[in-house]
Amino acid sequence: MIYFDNSATTLPLPEVLETYHKVNEQFFANPSSLHHLGSNAERLMDRTRQSIAQQLEVESGEIVFTSGGTEGNNLAIKGIALEHQSRGKHMITSQTEHPSVLEAFRGLEQLGFEITYVNVDDKGKVNPADIKRYIRYDTILISIMSVNNELGTIQPIEEIGQIASQYPKLYFHVDHVQGIGKIPLSLKRAKVDLCTLSGHKIHGLKGTGVLMVRQGIRIFPLFHGGGHEGNKRSGTENLPGMVAFAKALRLIKEKESNHMGGLKSIYHYFIEKLRDIDEIVINSSPEGAPHIINVSVPGVKPEVMIHVLADKEIFISSKSACSSKQPDVSSVLKACKLEQSVTTSALRISLSYQNTQVEVDQFINEFIKAVRYLKDKKGRY
Amino acid sequence: MIYFDNSATTLPLPEVLETYHKVNEQFFANPSSLHHLGSNAERLMDRTRQSIAQQLEVESGEIVFTSGGTEGNNLAIKGIALEHQSRGKHMITSQTEHPSVLEAFRGLEQLGFEITYVNVDDKGKVNPADIKRYIRYDTILISIMSVNNELGTIQPIEEIGQIASQYPKLYFHVDHVQGIGKIPLSLKRAKVDLCTLSGHKIHGLKGTGVLMVRQGIRIFPLFHGGGHEGNKRSGTENLPGMVAFAKALRLIKEKESNHMGGLKSIYHYFIEKLRDIDEIVINSSPEGAPHIINVSVPGVKPEVMIHVLADKEIFISSKSACSSKQPDVSSVLKACKLEQSVTTSALRISLSYQNTQVEVDQFINEFIKAVRYLKDKKGRY
Repeated sequence: MIYFDNSATTLPLPEVLETYHKVNEQFFANPSSLHHLGSNAERLMDRTRQSIAQQLEVESGEIVFTSGGTEGNNLAIKGIALEHQSRGKHMITSQTEHPSVLEAFRGLEQLGFEITYVNVDDKGKVNPADIKRYIRYDTILISIMSVNNELGTIQPIEEIGQIASQYPKLYFHVDHVQGIGKIPLSLKRAKVDLCTLSGHKIHGLKGTGVLMVRQGIRIFPLFHGGGHEGNKRSGTENLPGMVAFAKALRLIKEKESNHMGGLKSIYHYFIEKLRDIDEIVINSSPEGAPHIINVSVPGVKPEVMIHVLADKEIFISSKSACSSKQPDVSSVLKACKLEQSVTTSALRISLSYQNTQVEVDQFINEFIKAVRYLKDKKGRY
Repeated sequence: MIYFDNSATTLPLPEVLETYHKVNEQFFANPSSLHHLGSNAERLMDRTRQSIAQQLEVESGEIVFTSGGTEGNNLAIKGIALEHQSRGKHMITSQTEHPSVLEAFRGLEQLGFEITYVNVDDKGKVNPADIKRYIRYDTILISIMSVNNELGTIQPIEEIGQIASQYPKLYFHVDHVQGIGKIPLSLKRAKVDLCTLSGHKIHGLKGTGVLMVRQGIRIFPLFHGGGHEGNKRSGTENLPGMVAFAKALRLIKEKESNHMGGLKSIYHYFIEKLRDIDEIVINSSPEGAPHIINVSVPGVKPEVMIHVLADKEIFISSKSACSSKQPDVSSVLKACKLEQSVTTSALRISLSYQNTQVEVDQFINEFIKAVRYLKDKKGRY
């Protein structure tokens, strides 16, 4: 099996699963319980929060555990909107955000909020000057992802953070789900106020995630209740999931420190090999993140290519898994104003630190055969 | 160890953990992915949804997977409120609901909704006539729990459902987190429109749950995004958690069918033994659910009793784990208009099918010693 669909989800690491299992057995009590089974669980939770905070270089009180990226993005966006609407009802985002950001904003439009969706260039990049231009007296939030999930485009988060920080009442949210462990981002230097992470994109578990919320920032909880997570997200804490998340985060940060060179060299090798295939168009920027490559095979429907490759136990995707059941056209590529032949035939190849150059060679071999077979219906496959 | 804190959380069953582990290994792909790893995962998800629907005697399209009880309650209440606010902004609940219900309503008050909190009697029971009396032309939701989490009081859900069903534009939500597997409730006969369940209260996993939403009922999603869960709750599906939930539900329903007699006989034995202790007051109704017993030891602070018993490896709680870190007084018992000496000294003993009569005897023995020691500071402990 060659698994190149790591931006959809990753294989959970055995050691992460083992941690999850152990915590379920040894720390099953409710951390809110007053007896020592409860306080033991609470202490483990505190240590887990500290460990994550340390990895992200933030304070442990700034960690809010969530059920994943979609919750994190919704909590950040709706939490700021509903809490601070008396100050203003205008927010800024880009046209190529993840559906959990774009649709959260569409939901807020139904509730009377006004959203500006800034353009991107032909590689999917936001121009910070555009963002600055759209800021109004009643703008309360800017939300921009660090790495685009379809193209791998790296957004100028630090520049946007600098701009946002000049407006004391304007919050800056970053969807860092695809970026964490793959591209460097100092939340402090980039002056990020809220940042979304997901467990299952970093070989952790589905149903786990974190939203970083800077100390002192109030958000309207999506889940009211017992006041857990500093009153930002109530509900019995999923302690086994939290500890599993912390482990996955620590391991991906280790990979980022020690194996980034390897990932980058596989990525560049991959791009080079793809450049040799005349029939395809590479949509990703060469300055993009080192784990997402977007290519189009004009004239070939993405799902047909996906199935042909899957028959060879090679797994890639079309666009975002979260919009893969929608019609063929990629709204991200459309926002880049690419030709229709390209936006309707896009494929996403997404790598992890587990992939190897041998897999790239095998992929290229099968991919070339598939491209020629599907484009010309010539030769044999 | 004698664990009588099963309403706070339960020990996950080994077979549930094993199922979770296996699904993570064998079905790790994103169910939205177009390749066969994805569609295999999707098929397992469909089967899981059907299995849960069958257990609950509802349609599989009525199952919305959540991260637990707090999410379910918030999604039901806010989902109806935000979606149907143009029809009316009035809702009815009781004074003794779980914090995740009460605080969700408080949150909606901040957004301009009006909530009626109906009284309960001295055993915590809601009078359906009161609910009927408060229904207005602009009432859009009634939310009542099936079993109170502190007292074990069983609410007259069928009668309330009958009343609600006479108003075609009025929805009826039931927080069934403490009731599932312990008291019979036909969602169909009781005309329940939305029903919350949680995994970790039935020996399943934290971070898992279900909200049943009757077909055709629109709710405003708390999580917008890729349109998962019939557009009611977006986010990459936590398939291992879903399958684990289905397993825990099946097993608790089996227990309900085959072992209810045993649980009830332990419960009645327990109550009888407690009646012999002069120094305490039993707050639960004898017609309550067979797994929650609330007693007060006037003059003794709950946390002191909890710690004394915990030293003997006996685990009980004060009130709801979700409000256990708040000051001593139980707002549930206060709503029952009990004396202050009772509301400030309440203890909750909560059973599961795993508990035995031997444990009850051991508990009673230690409890009597602890009560006499703490009340009189006489004798030795």
